[in-house]
Amino acid sequence: MPPFTIAEYRERIERTRQRMEQTGLDALIVADPANMNYLTGYDGWSFYTPQCLVVSLDSDLPLCFVRGMDRNGGLRTSFLPADRVLGYPDQYVQSRDCHPYDWIAADLRERGLGRGRIGTEQDVYYFTPAAQSALERGLPEAAFVDASLLVNWIRAIKSREELRYMEQAARIVERVMQTALETIEPGVRQCDAVAAIYAAQIRGAEDYGGDYPAFVPLLPTGIGTSTPHLTWTDEPFRRGEATILELAGCRHRYHCPMARTLFLGDPPQRLRDTEQVVLEGLQAALDAATPGASAEAVEAAWRSVASRQGVTKESRIGYSVGLNYPPDWGEHTISLRPGDRTELEPNMTLHLILGIWADDWGIEISECFQVTEGGAKPFCRFPRELVVKQ
Amino acid sequence: MPPFTIAEYRERIERTRQRMEQTGLDALIVADPANMNYLTGYDGWSFYTPQCLVVSLDSDLPLCFVRGMDRNGGLRTSFLPADRVLGYPDQYVQSRDCHPYDWIAADLRERGLGRGRIGTEQDVYYFTPAAQSALERGLPEAAFVDASLLVNWIRAIKSREELRYMEQAARIVERVMQTALETIEPGVRQCDAVAAIYAAQIRGAEDYGGDYPAFVPLLPTGIGTSTPHLTWTDEPFRRGEATILELAGCRHRYHCPMARTLFLGDPPQRLRDTEQVVLEGLQAALDAATPGASAEAVEAAWRSVASRQGVTKESRIGYSVGLNYPPDWGEHTISLRPGDRTELEPNMTLHLILGIWADDWGIEISECFQVTEGGAKPFCRFPRELVVKQ
Repeated sequence: MPPFTIAEYRERIERTRQRMEQTGLDALIVADPANMNYLTGYDGWSFYTPQCLVVSLDSDLPLCFVRGMDRNGGLRTSFLPADRVLGYPDQYVQSRDCHPYDWIAADLRERGLGRGRIGTEQDVYYFTPAAQSALERGLPEAAFVDASLLVNWIRAIKSREELRYMEQAARIVERVMQTALETIEPGVRQCDAVAAIYAAQIRGAEDYGGDYPAFVPLLPTGIGTSTPHLTWTDEPFRRGEATILELAGCRHRYHCPMARTLFLGDPPQRLRDTEQVVLEGLQAALDAATPGASAEAVEAAWRSVASRQGVTKESRIGYSVGLNYPPDWGEHTISLRPGDRTELEPNMTLHLILGIWADDWGIEISECFQVTEGGAKPFCRFPRELVVKQ
Repeated sequence: MPPFTIAEYRERIERTRQRMEQTGLDALIVADPANMNYLTGYDGWSFYTPQCLVVSLDSDLPLCFVRGMDRNGGLRTSFLPADRVLGYPDQYVQSRDCHPYDWIAADLRERGLGRGRIGTEQDVYYFTPAAQSALERGLPEAAFVDASLLVNWIRAIKSREELRYMEQAARIVERVMQTALETIEPGVRQCDAVAAIYAAQIRGAEDYGGDYPAFVPLLPTGIGTSTPHLTWTDEPFRRGEATILELAGCRHRYHCPMARTLFLGDPPQRLRDTEQVVLEGLQAALDAATPGASAEAVEAAWRSVASRQGVTKESRIGYSVGLNYPPDWGEHTISLRPGDRTELEPNMTLHLILGIWADDWGIEISECFQVTEGGAKPFCRFPRELVVKQ
């Protein structure tokens, strides 16, 4: 059974259809697995073969297209009735001669859904140029428009139940980070530390288990801390080196991420100095993240602290976070950076992550928070510092 | 340092350029992270923002384009010199106004690489219609053609070093499967079993650690075994139910997958009967997988056994496997199914997986094997059976 009430899914679908009507879409093809999950509950590691929902103005229930063998997964995990979940034949999978979207297009044509303005998500991970071409070829009477992020923007404001899962994810990531900090020692193999971290992520808490986060544990170490997205090796951690930990807890695909930096031994002064700037700037950004503030104003609060101290950061300092599948727990809507004038609203959830990467060292400290009427409310209760282990 | 010699990477690039010349391509844009890794060693969880290699006939070294903050990751993990690794500015990331491929196209144009026939991988996970459109818009003098799988087909035959990593992955998955079978008991939460499985996957062996497999542990249980790609919950395993385990070991991104089915209690006769058909058919398919045999002939060997016993399976029974990133460890080239006339060659590696899914039950048993002059050689030494725990 899906983790939300059917009423909540139906309301999400209704908001999607309203948005479609406003933007003049007759149908919307939703290929982003997070959006598919959001609208129906569908949850499986099946997005490695093409799959999508088709939301139309004609019906209050989407159609769900998956590979034939995954149809039972659709029936088991979504709230959709059996006649709305369709499996395409296996010969379409990874074939040289045909594409799953050929079959999907033919089915839509037969249902009379092959006309009008059809939106596709043209910049999501699991929807390819070949998929778009197959739809255009198969539905020559339709006009296709890019509807990327239409559903993502609806997802930006979280419901009470969604916030509850993110709070559970927060409890999980607190344990996970604690496990990481306890496990990493000079001489311990990186892979053995990650084994403990992963186990803590999946075990979760006593009364609820953990789901897989959309990123594997990221832990660049030593000179690797000069860049954020390296994974582990089987080399040991070394005294005199830093390790950046970017980890999350995940519950029903909802994430609470957290980044911390650990130093084994006495950290160099530049790391200490940068820590102070990061902590002060992070607090300034949190203080600025009130309803009505713009995304860029939150970044400006950080920038003002940082530039006073001579620290520069070219990249964004945060993004909307919540429901997602690999490879990203970000939602691709709000970015905390100059030029993003999105107005913050209560129950938006963001990951504010201050990562500074120099030529051969770096530091990251973050907070995942909810926008509330009273301002930014961090999900986690966890010391905000450069962690030092002697 | 990358896990292969520079000579091996250079040879892979040369074979790619030869294939490009044969197919009339001046340049090839490689966005599949597995292909990027294969050609240069580049390895990071950075494929959630656009990145690519550009291989051209003009140069024996590709250009590597990544997000600015990931450039140091490119320098740390690939064999490419610093002037071939380029970082695009962060404002292009997940922006409403511009796309990373706008920047990449502008850079290619300046280098004189914006003309001629350019191949793009139009059906890989992390290359979207928006990316393709940005390239077409930015390089109006180029003619774009679909070059999906050009590099994948080169990857189909493994080198000695690649086979060595797959053998190490095999040693890991043997431990992982053993851990799974030992951990799963009635009353144990699914998430706790997966925590143990994940830890075993990442810990690896004494003398080499494990990398993250491209699939999370898949373990549909009970009625969930009617479909292959469900992940875990925090419900307990139950006596009288089956669990399908599809797991892998991974070493330097090279996989050795294995599927087994576990029954807690006395399995029903239909499961026992199907097990016998699966085991006999699996052996028949392995026996047929000799150099010179076609992919479809291997499937026919299974089908002949199965149809004699009244078992039908619509989906393919296997695929080429090796190097990959989430969400798939398959290589998208060879499929063991009717119509695939690919001739097997020594040092191809395949995952032969017999999954049977009925309305409310299922079974999977698999072998990952190398094609050798002497026939199929399984990577693993692990009992091939329906595992029963009382």
